[in-house]
Amino acid sequence: MRFDIVTCQPELLTSPFAHSIVQRAQDKGLAEIHLHDLRRFAINKHGQIDDYAFGGGAGMVLRPEPIAACLDGLMAKRKYDAVIYLTPDGPTFRQAAANRLSMAQNIILLCGHYKGIDERIREEYVTEEISIGDFVLSGGELGAAVVVDAVVRLLPGVLGNEESALSDSFQDGLLAPPVYTRPAEWRGREVPAILVSGDTPKVDEWRQEKALERTRQRRPDLLADLPAEAFEAPQPRRRRKKPNA
Amino acid sequence: MRFDIVTCQPELLTSPFAHSIVQRAQDKGLAEIHLHDLRRFAINKHGQIDDYAFGGGAGMVLRPEPIAACLDGLMAKRKYDAVIYLTPDGPTFRQAAANRLSMAQNIILLCGHYKGIDERIREEYVTEEISIGDFVLSGGELGAAVVVDAVVRLLPGVLGNEESALSDSFQDGLLAPPVYTRPAEWRGREVPAILVSGDTPKVDEWRQEKALERTRQRRPDLLADLPAEAFEAPQPRRRRKKPNA
Repeated sequence: MRFDIVTCQPELLTSPFAHSIVQRAQDKGLAEIHLHDLRRFAINKHGQIDDYAFGGGAGMVLRPEPIAACLDGLMAKRKYDAVIYLTPDGPTFRQAAANRLSMAQNIILLCGHYKGIDERIREEYVTEEISIGDFVLSGGELGAAVVVDAVVRLLPGVLGNEESALSDSFQDGLLAPPVYTRPAEWRGREVPAILVSGDTPKVDEWRQEKALERTRQRRPDLLADLPAEAFEAPQPRRRRKKPNA
Repeated sequence: MRFDIVTCQPELLTSPFAHSIVQRAQDKGLAEIHLHDLRRFAINKHGQIDDYAFGGGAGMVLRPEPIAACLDGLMAKRKYDAVIYLTPDGPTFRQAAANRLSMAQNIILLCGHYKGIDERIREEYVTEEISIGDFVLSGGELGAAVVVDAVVRLLPGVLGNEESALSDSFQDGLLAPPVYTRPAEWRGREVPAILVSGDTPKVDEWRQEKALERTRQRRPDLLADLPAEAFEAPQPRRRRKKPNA
């Protein structure tokens, strides 16, 4: 899978992509991430890529020409499944969107900065918009980093143990249950006895109960979307087949 | 304002904090951001900070001792307004939380990784939890970067033009209207005539209408929380007083 990230601040994104799971995915040849600096497509030798907003008011707007030049160059080289603009007025990014995007081959992520991009770029090029949440950031760069991280970890072979992603929060529509590790007693606080019992079916049942309880307390809105089976006794944990099995 | 970020992957966060607005805030002495590597508090000379989950299953869990040692050291030095754990099962981060946190002096951001942190740390230390959205990331680091960026840009003096943050999406409960910049005609697409009319009250009215229209189409859920005035004719734009005026 290939991501092309179009930004006026590529230097902001170097470290998140050079470590951890995203780096591992690149090392394994499972993901390619390319940063494209909009300043290389500036409209003049001063490196200009933005301008004042028509109608006045504070904040600069990214001009259409540099973005168009960068996108035209990319789109001439390969077919893209989506040209995604990161913007607070886009549909909110959720796990289902990460799952869907993980099936794509080539994706462009276009980062706004300052007051945003000229509306005509949205009309002309953008096929999908994503907001990572109801808050305002300095630019789309962290949004792009979030989308890449959420998607890349779903690609088969990226996580060391494939089961791990399936038991994350949201993948079954519930928040994850509490987790505990050694020491079994710490500062007078003991791990729940059931977790050290060795009784796997009981442990699964406890986790399902805790996941439901936590979701009911913290995010009752998530429960409305769940199928009836989620409220019943836990199913034996499904294992995903290895990609080449 | 001071942020202490506790993480097992500090190297992941270097570039987002070394550029753009967050760097500018640090250069101006308005924000301090300190990264603390959990591996410095490992339980043994092999650098161990995590362990298997009690009850079995994939994914490692961060042990309580390294986190406790790091937090104890910080909390002995100064008083913190909040110890925030970034976790997908926390309350969803929104602009109102960014506004609130921008009033704090000292904040600890604790990043989970792998399957999360031992539940007992949440009971013992954590005063607030934040999720940046309903999706799963490799760790809390990008969440911490998002929170820092959203909060720091609200600190007085950080943005070049203070009005800019006030006219962002969400600050008035609405999505932002479309923005346009030069050229006035691009690929046969013209900027809306009203924006080049020079008639400021009309421009304000158009922007308010477009903000409402866009919010109605894309995020009708936001309108439920709005006061009645938001639907009336636009008010003259308020200007925030300079901090020392």
